Amino acid sequence: MSFGWEAAATDGAARAGLLQTAHGAVSTPVFMPVGTAGTVKAMTADQVRATGASVVLGNTYHLMLRPGADRIERFGGLHRFMDWPGPILTDSGGFQVMSLSALRTLDEDGVTFRSHLDGSAHRLTPEIATGIQHKLDATITMAFDECTKFPATAEEVESSMERSMRWARRSRDAFVARPGYGQFGIVQGGVDPALRARSVAALLDIGFEGYAVGGLAVGEGQAAMFATLEVTVPLLPAERPRYLMGVGTPDDIVGGVQRGIDMFDCVMPTRAGRTARAYTRHGTLNLRNARHQEDERPLDPACGCTACVRHSRAYLHHLFRADEILGPMLLTQHNITYYQDLMHGLRDAICRGELNAHAAATRAAWAAGESR
Amino acid sequence: MSFGWEAAATDGAARAGLLQTAHGAVSTPVFMPVGTAGTVKAMTADQVRATGASVVLGNTYHLMLRPGADRIERFGGLHRFMDWPGPILTDSGGFQVMSLSALRTLDEDGVTFRSHLDGSAHRLTPEIATGIQHKLDATITMAFDECTKFPATAEEVESSMERSMRWARRSRDAFVARPGYGQFGIVQGGVDPALRARSVAALLDIGFEGYAVGGLAVGEGQAAMFATLEVTVPLLPAERPRYLMGVGTPDDIVGGVQRGIDMFDCVMPTRAGRTARAYTRHGTLNLRNARHQEDERPLDPACGCTACVRHSRAYLHHLFRADEILGPMLLTQHNITYYQDLMHGLRDAICRGELNAHAAATRAAWAAGESR
Repeated sequence: MSFGWEAAATDGAARAGLLQTAHGAVSTPVFMPVGTAGTVKAMTADQVRATGASVVLGNTYHLMLRPGADRIERFGGLHRFMDWPGPILTDSGGFQVMSLSALRTLDEDGVTFRSHLDGSAHRLTPEIATGIQHKLDATITMAFDECTKFPATAEEVESSMERSMRWARRSRDAFVARPGYGQFGIVQGGVDPALRARSVAALLDIGFEGYAVGGLAVGEGQAAMFATLEVTVPLLPAERPRYLMGVGTPDDIVGGVQRGIDMFDCVMPTRAGRTARAYTRHGTLNLRNARHQEDERPLDPACGCTACVRHSRAYLHHLFRADEILGPMLLTQHNITYYQDLMHGLRDAICRGELNAHAAATRAAWAAGESR
Repeated sequence: MSFGWEAAATDGAARAGLLQTAHGAVSTPVFMPVGTAGTVKAMTADQVRATGASVVLGNTYHLMLRPGADRIERFGGLHRFMDWPGPILTDSGGFQVMSLSALRTLDEDGVTFRSHLDGSAHRLTPEIATGIQHKLDATITMAFDECTKFPATAEEVESSMERSMRWARRSRDAFVARPGYGQFGIVQGGVDPALRARSVAALLDIGFEGYAVGGLAVGEGQAAMFATLEVTVPLLPAERPRYLMGVGTPDDIVGGVQRGIDMFDCVMPTRAGRTARAYTRHGTLNLRNARHQEDERPLDPACGCTACVRHSRAYLHHLFRADEILGPMLLTQHNITYYQDLMHGLRDAICRGELNAHAAATRAAWAAGESR
C-alpha cells in the first residue's frame, strides 16, 4: 500500500478525494479529532469510530513526556496502545513547545524546554521530533517547525519561516520512508503572500507526501486566514493532500474547504464538549443555560449520536449542572459526530458540484438557529 | 404484570430467583449499580446495559434537590429522563439526610435539612419521601426510615428502630399501589438480635412487597454484619425478595448471598472506578501503581468489558496518570462488569447446588491474586 491522495471530484478550488495509507483509507475533506495523550478525551475508541471519524491526531509533546515514546514503541506503536488501528497523524511537538514561552530556549539546532508536568529538561530538534514520531508509528509525520508568534515584525516572520524551512529539510532527511506512511511539510510565512510563496517553493524543493498550512488561527482573524489560504493553496501541488493545522470552527472549516483544504484538526469540538458548548446544524448553544432545563427536545433532531437519539436537552443540562462525567461524555460524542456530519455534507456537495450553495445553506441554518 | 419474586433454586440459606416488575424481570441474586443523580457515574445507559445490569438505583435526596421530582415527573419519570427503561429502585433519602449531621433536625414527624448544594431548606417525612418516589416513578419504593447511627447506645438503637417502624407504617399508608410496582420495608435494630426480630415483626404486621436489611455496613465490621444477617434473614418471609442496603465489597456480597440476601447496591465499584481501583477475579489492584506501567496484560483476561478486551494495564495506568476521563470511564465499566459477572457466577452456583464450593474458590482466587 503506497501512501497517496487522489481526487474524486473538484468544485471550484475545493476537492473531494481519497487518501490511501498503511492504516486504511480516508475520504477527504476530513476532520481529525484530537487525541492529545493517546485518547480522544472523554470517548472510547469505539465511540470515536461510531462518529464516522477515520483518522485521529496525536501530540508528540504530550506523548514524549507521558507515557514516553520508547514505551509506546515497545507496545507496538500508538495504534495498538490506544486501540486505534486507523490512520494517526502526529504533530511534531513544535507548536506546544513554542507555547511554553518562559520554559524554553530556541537555537538554530532546536529547542530545549522544561516539562510542564515535572520541570524535567527535554530537547526537540528536527531529528529528535521525527524520530519520536517514528517510534509512535505515526501514519503521517509532521515536519518540525517553528510556529511563528503573532503578532510579529516582518523581519521576525521572515527569519522564523526561513528557519522552519531549514528544519523542514532536516526533518525530511531524518524521516524513514515506509510504504503507506507519509511526512508533511508545513508552510509558514505569517500573512505575507510573498513569504508564503517562498515557503511553498522551499518545501516543494524538498518534496513531501503532503503539505500543511501552519501559523494560522493564531489571532490573525478569519478574513486574514482565508486571504492567506487564497494566495497559498493554489501554489501547492494538486495531487498532494493539504492540511490546515489547528482549524477550527465549523465556519472556518467550510471556508477552508472552499479554498482547497483537505484536512483539518482542532480541539474545539472536544474541549467544547467538556464545557457544555454544543455545535449543531442550528448554531451553538450552551447547555448550562437555564433555558434548557425543561426542554424535552433533543439537542439536534437530525443527529444520530447517543445524546440526540436518547436524551433531552433538559437531561444534558442536568448532567452539566450536576457536574456528572456523563455530560462531557455525551456532548463530546455529539460535537465530534456533528463535525463528521459536517465534513460528510461538504464531501457530498463537492461531488454534486454544489458546494457553494451547500455552504450558504449551512451558514444560513447556523445564523437562523442562534437566536433560539 | 404483578410485582413478585419466585425462587428458582435454593442452596442452604441462599436462593436464586426471578423478580417480576412493571419494568421487566430481574434474576436474583442481583447487584444494582448506583445511579445517584440520574446517571451511573461515567457510564452511558447503553454501557450499563452492556455489563448485564438489569436494575439500577436512584437517590431521592439528590434527585429531589436537582433536577427536582416535579421536573422528572413532567418528563414521564426517571426511566425516561435517564434512558433506563428497566427497573429502578429509589432509596427514601433518609440515609443521605441523616449523614448531613450539622445540617438537619429530626423530629417525630420527619427531618428538616439544608441542601448541600445551596443551603436551601427542605423537609422529608414518610409521606413526602414516598410521594417523591412516586413522582420519580420508582419501580421499587423504599420506606422512609432513620438510619441508626453507629456506634449508639442500646436505648438509642431501640428508640431509633421504633421510630423507623412508625415511619414504615406511614410510608406504607402513603404508598400508591400500582401493578408491577412495589415498596420495601427496612429492618433496623443495629446488631441486637432481639431488636432486629421486633423490627421484622413490625414490618410483617404492615406488609410489604419486599424487605430490606438496613443499618449495616456502617462500621460494625463484616463479622457483626454477617451475624446480624444470620439472625434476621431467617425471620423474613421466604416468598419475598430481600435487599441488603449499601453492601458492599465482593466478599461482603458473597457472604450476603450465602445468608439468603437477593439484592445488593453499593457505590464501591463505581467510586473505585474513578479512583483507579480495579476489582477482578484475582483481587483488587490500583492502576496508578507504577508496576503497571509496562504491563501489556489485560486487567482480567476472563472479563469481556472494553477495558479488558481492548486495552493493556499499561494503557489504563497511563490514562489515570494523565488524568484522562477515559480512565474512570473504562474502569467503571470494568468494575460494574465484574460485579455483574460475580452475581452471575453466584446464581449459577446456587442453581447447581454448589454455592459453598464456588464461594470458597472465588475467595481463594482473590487471595492468590493479591500478591501479584
